[in-house]
Amino acid sequence: MNEINVSEASALLKKKNNILILTHRNPDGDTLGCGFALFRALKKLGKSVDLRCPDSMPEKYSYMWQDTDYDSESAKSFKADYIVSVDIASMQLLGALSEEYKTIDMCIDHHITNTKYAKNILLQPTAAACEIVFDVISELGIYIDRKIADCLYTGIATDTGCFRYGNTTPQTHIKGAELIKLGADYENINRVMFETKTLSYLKLEQKALEGIEMYYDNKCAIIIITQQMLKDTGTDESDCDGITVLSRKIEGVLCGITLRQRSDMTYKCSLRTYPPINAANICHTFGGGGHIAAAGCEFSDDVNFAKSRILKAVEKEFTEKL
Amino acid sequence: MNEINVSEASALLKKKNNILILTHRNPDGDTLGCGFALFRALKKLGKSVDLRCPDSMPEKYSYMWQDTDYDSESAKSFKADYIVSVDIASMQLLGALSEEYKTIDMCIDHHITNTKYAKNILLQPTAAACEIVFDVISELGIYIDRKIADCLYTGIATDTGCFRYGNTTPQTHIKGAELIKLGADYENINRVMFETKTLSYLKLEQKALEGIEMYYDNKCAIIIITQQMLKDTGTDESDCDGITVLSRKIEGVLCGITLRQRSDMTYKCSLRTYPPINAANICHTFGGGGHIAAAGCEFSDDVNFAKSRILKAVEKEFTEKL
Repeated sequence: MNEINVSEASALLKKKNNILILTHRNPDGDTLGCGFALFRALKKLGKSVDLRCPDSMPEKYSYMWQDTDYDSESAKSFKADYIVSVDIASMQLLGALSEEYKTIDMCIDHHITNTKYAKNILLQPTAAACEIVFDVISELGIYIDRKIADCLYTGIATDTGCFRYGNTTPQTHIKGAELIKLGADYENINRVMFETKTLSYLKLEQKALEGIEMYYDNKCAIIIITQQMLKDTGTDESDCDGITVLSRKIEGVLCGITLRQRSDMTYKCSLRTYPPINAANICHTFGGGGHIAAAGCEFSDDVNFAKSRILKAVEKEFTEKL
Repeated sequence: MNEINVSEASALLKKKNNILILTHRNPDGDTLGCGFALFRALKKLGKSVDLRCPDSMPEKYSYMWQDTDYDSESAKSFKADYIVSVDIASMQLLGALSEEYKTIDMCIDHHITNTKYAKNILLQPTAAACEIVFDVISELGIYIDRKIADCLYTGIATDTGCFRYGNTTPQTHIKGAELIKLGADYENINRVMFETKTLSYLKLEQKALEGIEMYYDNKCAIIIITQQMLKDTGTDESDCDGITVLSRKIEGVLCGITLRQRSDMTYKCSLRTYPPINAANICHTFGGGGHIAAAGCEFSDDVNFAKSRILKAVEKEFTEKL
């Protein structure tokens, strides 16, 4: 493993002619933004390039590959002499593709937890991986056209909650300014990424809020999502991420709990907390883990039993910390 | 009326010693951000300064005046020799204060619709009024400390939906970068301004979504808010603004309608549309008005009658435009 900088990464890419880009499973705006920005940029350099994603790519990102010759089917048979992973902290995140591509030549990533699985790694704990790709493309001397700007802007905006979260730096804003100047369609991108929800998701949110329970002087909120609720609203487990975040959005809540019933009838418990409450502490009690503000654990019990167990652990944390 | 630039505004302020700042009614982050940034900056210059707002200022903005000697009661008897209005497009927006302060010496504003009521006007159609105040404070040669940075950041973030809306310019981001460097507590500010909702509001949202009706191939959504719903959830009419926005957030919706029952049992109808649907066109039919994407009208009919009338007008617009 060799740690490289932006100009070394650029020099390595310049030398190669058949470059395959890999994005992570459950693709988000940052990995796809990196992937298609680099795809478009390397094409401009006359390279043969292709891209693979372990899962299908949500339609809402389709502007990233629009007007290119990208075809996910033909990408499967692309003969690469250089493989670049973007925004991928570990081989696991390649899903099924980790069997197919065992050697990664270059990894461009921003996760401090990167397992350093690639031969060359360009790792910067900047806000978004797209910020690093922005620099690599600039270093390659490629003009960032509107479409590349759209890809990079998407990654930066989605990774920082549109410049809201604590990972936003002055540099993030400076790149945002640059991308708007270069023609990024930021208004529409932000509308699609942040302002739009499906009616089914909103119906799930409605049912979730209908059953919300508040504890400990309204400092703790519990939301329960059952398989029946998913069925009734036409949603699936991927819709539950928004609900998990919702629990902590309530004014005064320091600990938001979401108990989500899985298809095997066990419960995934997700916690979102604010200081001084430590989500990982609480989940650790049940063999789970995570970070201070976001952690999870599992219960195979009946929902009421699961609820009383997690509430007891929350109460303990509240008593110690508040 | 005299149109002035940033350096002229700065020169005028330097000459005065007892400056009163006025913010607009229903105060938002931008007017208060301007007001308290200027309040703090002019204090640093050794001026006697005070500030008045026609309505009470929401508690969530209290960090703006924290650690200052600001007192809204004593501000009432402040003897000013210079009056500056910030983010105020017309005298009407001064509410009751327009009786008390008939002559405004300087207006700093970003509304293209400004009625030019002040003796001197510094008008720039930048994203947020706070962007202009940022420049004025810099021109005054005052160091922007953390607290001033918090005020200015709040104005910029709230006015642009945290850099999401079309009024965001490269300059907006460059100022965002600068304010983060200067120590603006952007993560907490964004949390309070954008991430937090009261439980009562969420309950109202839940009830609104429960009754949502979709028309015209799901391109039109209607939400009805009754006085009973406000009563049941402990919310008031000020909470309805979020619901109005909600109607258009649904994927595929080009026209979101909110019919909100007033305490006198009439209905306020708010439309939010996406191109090519013109909200003002539709509301004009009923003597209402507004902009292309946001307009309103009123109905004194029974709700079902109101609904059928507005839907008929929407259908006409859909037939013509789609």
